[in-house]
Parts: sequence; C-alpha cells; structure tokens
Amino acid sequence: MANAVEIVECVPNFSEGRRPAVVEAIAASMQGVAGAALLDVSLDADHNRCVLTLVGSPDAVAEAVFRGVRTAAGLIDMERHQGGHPRVGAADVIPFIPVRGLDMSRCVDLARRVGERIARELEIPVYLYGEAAALPERRSLGAIRKGQYEALKVEIGRPERRPDFGPPRLHPTAGATIVGARKPLLAYNVDLATEEKTLADAIARKVRTSSGGLPGIMAAGIEMKERRRVQVSMNLTDTDVTPVQVAFEAVRREAEARGVEVAESEIIGLVTLEALLDAVRHYLRMPGLKAEQVLEARLLALLLEERGGGAE
Amino acid sequence: MANAVEIVECVPNFSEGRRPAVVEAIAASMQGVAGAALLDVSLDADHNRCVLTLVGSPDAVAEAVFRGVRTAAGLIDMERHQGGHPRVGAADVIPFIPVRGLDMSRCVDLARRVGERIARELEIPVYLYGEAAALPERRSLGAIRKGQYEALKVEIGRPERRPDFGPPRLHPTAGATIVGARKPLLAYNVDLATEEKTLADAIARKVRTSSGGLPGIMAAGIEMKERRRVQVSMNLTDTDVTPVQVAFEAVRREAEARGVEVAESEIIGLVTLEALLDAVRHYLRMPGLKAEQVLEARLLALLLEERGGGAE
Repeated sequence: MANAVEIVECVPNFSEGRRPAVVEAIAASMQGVAGAALLDVSLDADHNRCVLTLVGSPDAVAEAVFRGVRTAAGLIDMERHQGGHPRVGAADVIPFIPVRGLDMSRCVDLARRVGERIARELEIPVYLYGEAAALPERRSLGAIRKGQYEALKVEIGRPERRPDFGPPRLHPTAGATIVGARKPLLAYNVDLATEEKTLADAIARKVRTSSGGLPGIMAAGIEMKERRRVQVSMNLTDTDVTPVQVAFEAVRREAEARGVEVAESEIIGLVTLEALLDAVRHYLRMPGLKAEQVLEARLLALLLEERGGGAE
Repeated sequence: MANAVEIVECVPNFSEGRRPAVVEAIAASMQGVAGAALLDVSLDADHNRCVLTLVGSPDAVAEAVFRGVRTAAGLIDMERHQGGHPRVGAADVIPFIPVRGLDMSRCVDLARRVGERIARELEIPVYLYGEAAALPERRSLGAIRKGQYEALKVEIGRPERRPDFGPPRLHPTAGATIVGARKPLLAYNVDLATEEKTLADAIARKVRTSSGGLPGIMAAGIEMKERRRVQVSMNLTDTDVTPVQVAFEAVRREAEARGVEVAESEIIGLVTLEALLDAVRHYLRMPGLKAEQVLEARLLALLLEERGGGAE
C-alpha cells in the first residue's frame, strides 16, 4: 500500500485576457489528458493575460501544457497584443512547481523537456528560467523579458539574448516562451486588530527579506477598510525555508511587542497539503506525520495510480 | 470551479484472519468499482478477523462493500469460525463514516440502504447500529453481539433480538451482519518526556470522558520502553466535539502542571484532512481555511467528478 505518487503543478500564463473564447479554447485543449486536471482559469483584462492552474502527474501535466501552448500559438497574435503586464509571447511563462513526491530536479527536467519540445515541434524560441535556468542571469524573469516582445524581436539574434532552445528568431505570431521551475508561492495575510496602518507597515518591514527580516518573505502593510483593521500582506516564496507558521509567529511576536493582537490570518488561493502538514507537525509536535496518513491524499494517490497518469 | 464532492469511508470487519487467500478474494471482489478505492487491508490471526478500509463516493463505496459481503458469505462458514474477537457473522460489522462533503444523515441512509440490500439479496439478517440504529438499545455493538454468533443463532427469533432487516434466522454460513454509521475514530498518542508511568496514568484519568474529563476521549497511560518515556494513548471518538488540538493542549497543560514536557505526539493510521485543517485553523487563527484550497483536495475532487463516482 506504499504510494510514490508524484504530483506537479504548472501555472502557464498566456497573453490573452480579453477574449474569453480564446481562453476557453486554450483551456479545452489542455483537458482530456488522463492524470492531469485543470483546477483554475483566471483572466485579467487590464493585463490582457490569463493564468491557468494545472495539476497532476508530471508526464500528464507536461502533455497538457504542451497542447495549450500549441493552441495559444494558433489563436494569439503577438503583433497585435497590448496589455499592462510584461510579456514576450503568446504562451508567455510556464513554471513547473513540485507539489508532492518529487523534488525540484524533476521539475527542472520537466521544464527542459517541455521547452525543447515547444521549440522543436512549434518552432517557438524558448528561454529557461528559475531553477531550470541554463544561464545564471536567466534565473529571474526580468532579465529575459527586458524590453518585452517588441525589443526581443530585434535583439534575439544577439549572443546574450539567444534562446536556450529553438531558432534565434521569434515565432511570427507566438513570439517566445519562457519555461522554468520554481517553488510554490503562498499568498498569506495576517490581519491585526488595529486600524493603525503604520503598525502594519512597521511589522511588514521587520519580517520581510528585503529589509533584513526572514528569508523568502515579501510583505507590505495594507488598510482593510471594510474590516476596519490593517493587514500584513505577504508572499511566501520558499516555505521550505520560512513556513507559514514561522511567518505567522513572526508577525504575532512583532504585533504583541507593539501591544497589538493578531485578529486572524488567511491563505489566498491554493496551498499544498505539505505546507499545512508542516504547520500541524510544528504545533502538535508531531514530526512523524506523513501525507500518506491523510485519507484524502491516499485516495488521490490510488486514483492517480489506477489511471496510470501517463500522457495519452 | 465549486466542488461538492462527497467522500465516505467504510471499514468492514470480516470474520477471517487466518486464510490470506479468503481475505484476498474479499478484497478483490471490492475492487473495480469506479469511484471507490481500497486503502488498506489488515489481518489479525488471533482475532481471526480482518479489517478493510474503503473510501470514495457514497454509491461506489456502498456497491463495493456489498460485493465484499457477498463474497464473504460464500467463503466464510461461521459454523467453523473461532477467534478472540466477538462476532455474529462472516461480514460482522460495516460502519459508514462521513469524511467530506456529507453529513451523518447521509451515512445513516447509506447504512440502511446497504443493510436492506444485504438482507434482501443475500438473505442475511441485518442489525443497524451506531447513528443508524433504529432502536436506541442497538446504538452500541455490545448489545447486538451479546452471546455472539452461537447465542444469536438460538435467540434471533425472540422479539428483542429480531433483526432490522431480513429473516429472523441466521444465514446458514454467513450468520448475521451489523451495519451502521459513526464518526471517524482518531488514534492519537502524546509522549511525555518522563519514564514515570504514574504521571501518564494520572493525566489519562484527568482528560478522559469516563473519569470526568473531556467528551469523546478514551485514554490510558502506557510505558514505551524502547523510547524510554511514557505515553498518554488516546482514542478520540468525536473530533467535532474534542478535536485533536484540544486533546493535545489538555495533555500538555496537565503535563506542565506536573513539571513534565510533552516530547511529541503521533496519529496512528489514517486521519481526515478536515481534522488537520481544524488544527491549522486554530493555531494560525485562520477560520476561513477551506478544504477546497488544498491543491491535492481539489485534484481529488476533479478526479472523482470525472469518474462519475457511481456504481457500475
């Protein structure tokens, strides 16, 4: 009854947020791969961009996302694209994220394999980023996206802007694609029982990485007018290094030192089971707690195994 | 993207723990129902009994367990059965347990439906117990099992021992079956950083229901010789009333009042996601946390929906 099920998440960003039919077509093309599931689709008209959330077994997710890229290349014309978010292509950024049963190196392999396939079969130049970057200066998206689609079109032939896979020229409609691997991001907010925004600002500064706080925390103070309180709004970029309970306790400590209570906290969007188990292990002093003990996780593992989880 | 997925657990106990081939045949007959998964099989030769753990959508689990009962009725002869555990039939006890997306009343319905079907199709007399009991004195197993198979064979015709479904006589080989509904049980232990067993005993007495402690806790002190410490070993019978974190904090408080530290704690076997989410909600002051935010739970819901989850 062991289970070595591997679950990967992929959050492709496509340069379309205004034509729902196009987004639906991309989403539809990703479905029907056994072992992969499309959990969420969100569109942003201002950014003219959409973000899809796929999860499942590595091969199935890789196949599904490839199909989405192929569909997007046929329906999105970067020559006509405008929007508020930096972008270089129709399938702009494709991060693979380890969720369970696999480590970062598997996601790096997956990103490289999918990137190579996109370049070979679709003739779209591909850049590798994040943990999958082949060049250190390409770890961050900013460097790859410099000047966006319009500048890259001219500069792609230069040695420093050569893609990692594919031709040294943009695809005529789909532009370029950035594929990579990264850790899960957690959007996490802690509300304080006060309306003093300066307090939330001070605590955000105290805990965030950029001002000498904990590693893997971006934070800002926010006023929550309807709730009549302020919030320390955080992005946790590496919950292996700074788990959610460590962020919570740091904010609580700083708040209490200033005579303020934590009212409540919230996770925005999705969270991995592992991040929650880690909090339970900490508070209940339960180092031995395993995902395989969670009834729903066991059932999921069995269903994924039964389906084979391979691409069709 | 809403998900109203319903997951039920069923833990049928069969009167066979010595012939692995018989247990395998029962297990095999339960597999192959879309939407139900067999998570665990455990045999006890002394008790001559096995416990199987099925989970999935209600209809699928009901179908799978019915198939198991039918197989057991053909392979186990109660006239020849001996073992250390009280029993009245080949398929001795079948509890349905709500895991997610359904409440106890659905499990009660399920128990009655499966019980009625076992009686009708297999001609096995069925008793309803636990939350599904039709008579208050049948809420506990003890009353139904009084005198076990051997006594029930003689007494089943008496008004007070009449089955809830089926004929007032035992099945010639399969005896009777007890079907019901109950809350999940959680086997939960807290280790103390001491070798003083009297301390664990005292704390167990303080927290358990039977000596005036918290509701829904059975507890005993145990010596853990290899670990060189003592343990408060608990069964939590109603984690809605006394959740795992409340049991932990109660033991911790009692230990600290006696100058002893909690070393660690452990959950034995399976736990529902809901029980863990409840602990996270408590410690991180996160009342809004929902199962649907857990990536694995979302994936599971989608896979179960895709499969339809109905019986074949």
